[in-house]
Amino acid sequence: MEKNGSYTIVDININDKDSNTNGGKDKNEVKKNVAVFKTQRERGERDYIGFATLPEQVHRKSVKRGFDFTLMVVGESGLGKSTLINSLFLGDLYKNRKIPDVQDRIEKTTTIEKKTMEIEERGVKLRLTIVDTPGFGDSINCEDSWRVCSAYVDEQFRQYFTDESGLNRRHMQDNRVHCCLYFVPPWAHSLRQVDLEMMRRLHRKVNIVVVIAKADSLTAAEVRRLKTRILNDLEEHQIQVYQFPECDSDEDEEFKQQDRELKAAAPFAVVAADTVLEVGGKRVRGRQYPWGIVDVENPRHSDFTKLRTMLISTHMQDLKDVTQDVHYENFRAQCISQISQHAMRERGKLKRDSMGNNPESIVITDTDRLLLQKDEEIRRMQDMLTQMQEKLKASDKKHDSIIDV
Amino acid sequence: MEKNGSYTIVDININDKDSNTNGGKDKNEVKKNVAVFKTQRERGERDYIGFATLPEQVHRKSVKRGFDFTLMVVGESGLGKSTLINSLFLGDLYKNRKIPDVQDRIEKTTTIEKKTMEIEERGVKLRLTIVDTPGFGDSINCEDSWRVCSAYVDEQFRQYFTDESGLNRRHMQDNRVHCCLYFVPPWAHSLRQVDLEMMRRLHRKVNIVVVIAKADSLTAAEVRRLKTRILNDLEEHQIQVYQFPECDSDEDEEFKQQDRELKAAAPFAVVAADTVLEVGGKRVRGRQYPWGIVDVENPRHSDFTKLRTMLISTHMQDLKDVTQDVHYENFRAQCISQISQHAMRERGKLKRDSMGNNPESIVITDTDRLLLQKDEEIRRMQDMLTQMQEKLKASDKKHDSIIDV
Repeated sequence: MEKNGSYTIVDININDKDSNTNGGKDKNEVKKNVAVFKTQRERGERDYIGFATLPEQVHRKSVKRGFDFTLMVVGESGLGKSTLINSLFLGDLYKNRKIPDVQDRIEKTTTIEKKTMEIEERGVKLRLTIVDTPGFGDSINCEDSWRVCSAYVDEQFRQYFTDESGLNRRHMQDNRVHCCLYFVPPWAHSLRQVDLEMMRRLHRKVNIVVVIAKADSLTAAEVRRLKTRILNDLEEHQIQVYQFPECDSDEDEEFKQQDRELKAAAPFAVVAADTVLEVGGKRVRGRQYPWGIVDVENPRHSDFTKLRTMLISTHMQDLKDVTQDVHYENFRAQCISQISQHAMRERGKLKRDSMGNNPESIVITDTDRLLLQKDEEIRRMQDMLTQMQEKLKASDKKHDSIIDV
Repeated sequence: MEKNGSYTIVDININDKDSNTNGGKDKNEVKKNVAVFKTQRERGERDYIGFATLPEQVHRKSVKRGFDFTLMVVGESGLGKSTLINSLFLGDLYKNRKIPDVQDRIEKTTTIEKKTMEIEERGVKLRLTIVDTPGFGDSINCEDSWRVCSAYVDEQFRQYFTDESGLNRRHMQDNRVHCCLYFVPPWAHSLRQVDLEMMRRLHRKVNIVVVIAKADSLTAAEVRRLKTRILNDLEEHQIQVYQFPECDSDEDEEFKQQDRELKAAAPFAVVAADTVLEVGGKRVRGRQYPWGIVDVENPRHSDFTKLRTMLISTHMQDLKDVTQDVHYENFRAQCISQISQHAMRERGKLKRDSMGNNPESIVITDTDRLLLQKDEEIRRMQDMLTQMQEKLKASDKKHDSIIDV
């Protein structure tokens, strides 16, 4: 029994699994109740309550509400970022872009280019935002590049934090960056200084997925070597790229196998193409060389299909969840601690002002003390009231029993 | 182009549907891009991106995480609340309960009895909490009853608000009351004063679902009449019980039909039973009368199955969503406005203090006002204490005199 001012809670926890709300009491009763419950169900009297539809209810609601996803692409010019996005989302998002000449590229600072599209597939609506960073790494000083990206990610978090703390939360828009595709050039021997610096700035804010761009210029052996080196570099420099969640042991074998393959493929060596070719009567996105055709979606040619499967079909929701539960929560915790420190300082300052220049002055003012005293008094009186109520009850009971006699 | 301090955003919105992030510019380009995008897809070059799996990703995650639901049952003793809960969840939650005798019931104030069980059905886990209010309406003064229920609902909101504002939000437990089953006796001609008062206190805090208890004592015509009267009373007194959401026009016909039937049945006239009978070789929960057997789950006998379908299989998630989006958001808005008012007063107080003895300063400061409020509260409590002391004395005297006689 837990007394809680105006009401009494009798908290009986039926299943002892959920021990944190039980607190250890009533253990015997708990076990008995579970047993009774099971027996009844095992008897097969009626064994369908109906709450197994809950995931479908959630499913239905999610379709109604629609989804949003924001993908940031980071990497220097010429690595095929735009082509990869077009290949991934079957769009032609970058049709009208104008490739800047060398002079522009040297002068230009990194900019953020945001494109939002609403696409629908089998009744499922997705508001997809691609955040591109043209000019990244093109200027002589790379410091600027990572600062722009990092500031953009923070700005989205800050906007979300403001919205979440506000009063009208029903129609919040989530513009947080859920994933950052980081492009490593195929000609790199491993991660370069600029890559490591950039990732170091971002890996605690956003889910980084590393891709080896234009992998059709590497042989299978070269791809394997580059992947190993990249993984070693990440480990050595303690950079946490996006971690695939553990696969549940009760998943079916096909799902587990796919999960293993996806995990083994990272960092993904990709080939993308805007051109459509005909291969054996089938139209494919591909690249034609004198020695053969690279079919973008052929898993023997590149990891493009694996990347797409992971990013879109299997792990998109997890990327969003990790953004919310890990990266955003970290940001929020920092914000809150900053705000409360600021408030403390403000209060301290005002108090000091109000006390004049007395060097001996204590932080707590007289007003504070008076208010605290009154609060204390109110608390004491509440206790007295409770006690009297109980007394009154007890007295009634006592007298009643006397009368009964 | 939107200059934003350190970076530049080029916000190009591809689909003009989403006009709020576009702001009207680039309209032509937008349309062109959509067209290109569509043409590419219509060409059937590859028309599956893969994000149609998003609802399944959500589904899978929700199963992994499990569900929770809290149901409050409110109604006076003897209306079959416990039996209904047992019938709904096929449990025997109230096996060991002891029915209090009349004397206990008169003295007793309303208490809150919370039972939590973890149940699993087809791999879906549900942490179900039943909040019972034994003693409700049993005492002579009903004021106490609604205060206890209302305080309990508020307390859960407050806990959630505290948790949500805190730093460790990953393992928050949702104990908010998602639905309140309000039991109306079958012998009532309509809603009574006590019902209306109770609902008035609760309808803006919790989803109320009205049930007519023990409906097997009413003929079909009587049920219809009572339902009409209850609906009229609710409308007349502007009490908003839980509103079924609008059914989407693109749902299938079967779903729409079920939805219409559920809506038409409210308030649900229910019969529940703890006993299992055999009817035509089938074991059913039912009640045996000399004139026939009431099969609890027979839709011709009562609305029990409709209530269960609505509460568990079709609208459980919506009840949770309305709790979160409407009732909790209202509570939260109140909390925030109280907090900010308090902070304003505090700040005003400190500022005015810091202005020293300026003769132009306002006469009553916020601190004064706060102190006055507290004084007022103390005075009120003192009055209550005095009253109670007198009551205690009077009660002693009365009992003494009775004994003397």
